[in-house]
Amino acid sequence: MKIVVVGATGTIGSAVAAELETDHEIIRVGNSRGDFNVDLQSTDSIENLFNDIGNFDCLVSAAGLAKFGNLADLTLEEHHYGLEHKLFGQVKLVLLGRKHINPSGSFTLTSGQLSDYPMVGSSSISMINAGLNGFVRAAALELEDGIRINAVSPGWVKETMEAMGMDSSPGTPAAQLARVYKTSIMGSQNGEILDTSILN
Amino acid sequence: MKIVVVGATGTIGSAVAAELETDHEIIRVGNSRGDFNVDLQSTDSIENLFNDIGNFDCLVSAAGLAKFGNLADLTLEEHHYGLEHKLFGQVKLVLLGRKHINPSGSFTLTSGQLSDYPMVGSSSISMINAGLNGFVRAAALELEDGIRINAVSPGWVKETMEAMGMDSSPGTPAAQLARVYKTSIMGSQNGEILDTSILN
Repeated sequence: MKIVVVGATGTIGSAVAAELETDHEIIRVGNSRGDFNVDLQSTDSIENLFNDIGNFDCLVSAAGLAKFGNLADLTLEEHHYGLEHKLFGQVKLVLLGRKHINPSGSFTLTSGQLSDYPMVGSSSISMINAGLNGFVRAAALELEDGIRINAVSPGWVKETMEAMGMDSSPGTPAAQLARVYKTSIMGSQNGEILDTSILN
Repeated sequence: MKIVVVGATGTIGSAVAAELETDHEIIRVGNSRGDFNVDLQSTDSIENLFNDIGNFDCLVSAAGLAKFGNLADLTLEEHHYGLEHKLFGQVKLVLLGRKHINPSGSFTLTSGQLSDYPMVGSSSISMINAGLNGFVRAAALELEDGIRINAVSPGWVKETMEAMGMDSSPGTPAAQLARVYKTSIMGSQNGEILDTSILN
């Protein structure tokens, strides 16, 4: 299959690409690196991406930025930033990508556990991740021709915790998370919010 | 208590105001009617509202517009509309209103059951309602001085169904829903997503 991985140069995206590249054609899309570049905030940039790539079978997005910070510390612009980038950027990958996806294909977006398990500083990200899950559950009711959509909702990623100098022992290795994405791509789930519990 | 009801001229908001007006000072805020007007898409308009009203004890929002329509039929702008209006508009009522709310006060926002129970045509609204719930769960961890925040998540409202010429028998009367808002305002819930099941 021809699988587009948006965010392929990131921690999760590169693990997803590595998990799939033996058996599939992987199109690596990054912000500034990879086979193609995209700016999720720009509708033109996303439309150009799909025109350049041509039709595809599956799209995985492990992309999208949002601001972490206390309610009282973030500016309105910082609170709003991820709404355009991580939330509506990924939604636009579906809204525009559906014109280029082959029958029986799939979309897999990335939300995150803060949707339902917030922490101090997560109000903007919790809003965004929950919004993504809501979109995915609803969009699954409308996609036709056997096309599916799911979200993967990661918790803390081990490699990210290490890079941040945190105790990484509670983190999930990116390679394990990549198997959750593979389940979304290869399985029959539709409209589901997936995490590592599906691997058990 | 001094209770600000944003959306007070709507079906739900007017029922909430009616439920509370015997015992409390109600400040009715509408788009174009009521004691004060606000445009939820405009940060300046929201800031002016709070400067005009002065400090308050509780804020209820039963306001916010979003577009219903199939994934394939809505334009990108229509998909995006409610993100700014119903979602970030209500979030801004909290982010800006927290500077004007009295200790032990509360915010009550309005999401809706489509967050978790989508239907064909609800992808934008499901995203928005779920995002509101995610924000509320997280924001509750950070509000100080005994200030609480909840969302009320209505299903179909009987009066709305009647106005749309639908069979209204499965709908919840606005007056019953108003008692759910009252529970959020008067109760001890914080970070909760409330529906009529709390009245049982």
